[in-house]
Amino acid sequence: MAAAGRPALARALLQQCVSARLQVKPPEHDSEAEWVEIQRGLVIYICFFKGADEDIVPKIGDVLIIPQATLGGKPKGRKMQYHANIEKEKGLELYSQFVTLCEKELAGNARCMEAGVLVKHGTYGNRQVLKLDTNGPYTHLIEF
Amino acid sequence: MAAAGRPALARALLQQCVSARLQVKPPEHDSEAEWVEIQRGLVIYICFFKGADEDIVPKIGDVLIIPQATLGGKPKGRKMQYHANIEKEKGLELYSQFVTLCEKELAGNARCMEAGVLVKHGTYGNRQVLKLDTNGPYTHLIEF
Repeated sequence: MAAAGRPALARALLQQCVSARLQVKPPEHDSEAEWVEIQRGLVIYICFFKGADEDIVPKIGDVLIIPQATLGGKPKGRKMQYHANIEKEKGLELYSQFVTLCEKELAGNARCMEAGVLVKHGTYGNRQVLKLDTNGPYTHLIEF
Repeated sequence: MAAAGRPALARALLQQCVSARLQVKPPEHDSEAEWVEIQRGLVIYICFFKGADEDIVPKIGDVLIIPQATLGGKPKGRKMQYHANIEKEKGLELYSQFVTLCEKELAGNARCMEAGVLVKHGTYGNRQVLKLDTNGPYTHLIEF
């Protein structure tokens, strides 16, 4: 599904939602868990592969961006392998760029600003907890 | 990701969950909505492509199977196209077989039976509503 003739550089999974809530910091003995939350909008699970170095930006509604390295797995026997996934540091860098681009794209769109569209995002490399309410689901898979 | 040398015949998306609840029949003026629900387990979104005619079966935990034709889409400009998706009737047939195989696989596994593992599933071609609680998410993509 990626551009013909080369392996995919990124894989994104899109799921519309009525509301979604993602834990971005687990509870600790001296602090409560932190969550980000969106209402009607789009959840984007994103994973980068080795060789990725730039990317494009999706649109529409509130947006919750979730780093999701497991999406890059390949079944091998009864296990999943992640040999094609990008190195952690580069992945964090691309993920941050992707979040920033989404934020800029929405901030630059007058109708999104009028509607008060929000971009929220998970923390790269962090333990996460997701609660999702859909009136679908409608799940789309896109590779770049 | 599918077997080398041929296009994928089926695409499955797997998401672990703490609980999941899927509406399988919308409310009508004389009846309430019907839901299926699982606790800790696995949500499988499944989509068949043209040419599919048999399949294999995943495992583990409660299982919620969701027909998800949107997974077969291919981006074309700003829209998704579904030209590769299997025809509705054949899709329904394969979906039913897949559900039956999952049920049989679990029923044939002594440890699953002891643990009271459940298979629940959505209705093919139906309007759905999904509520999902994860302690991840951990999303895996598999093609056959």
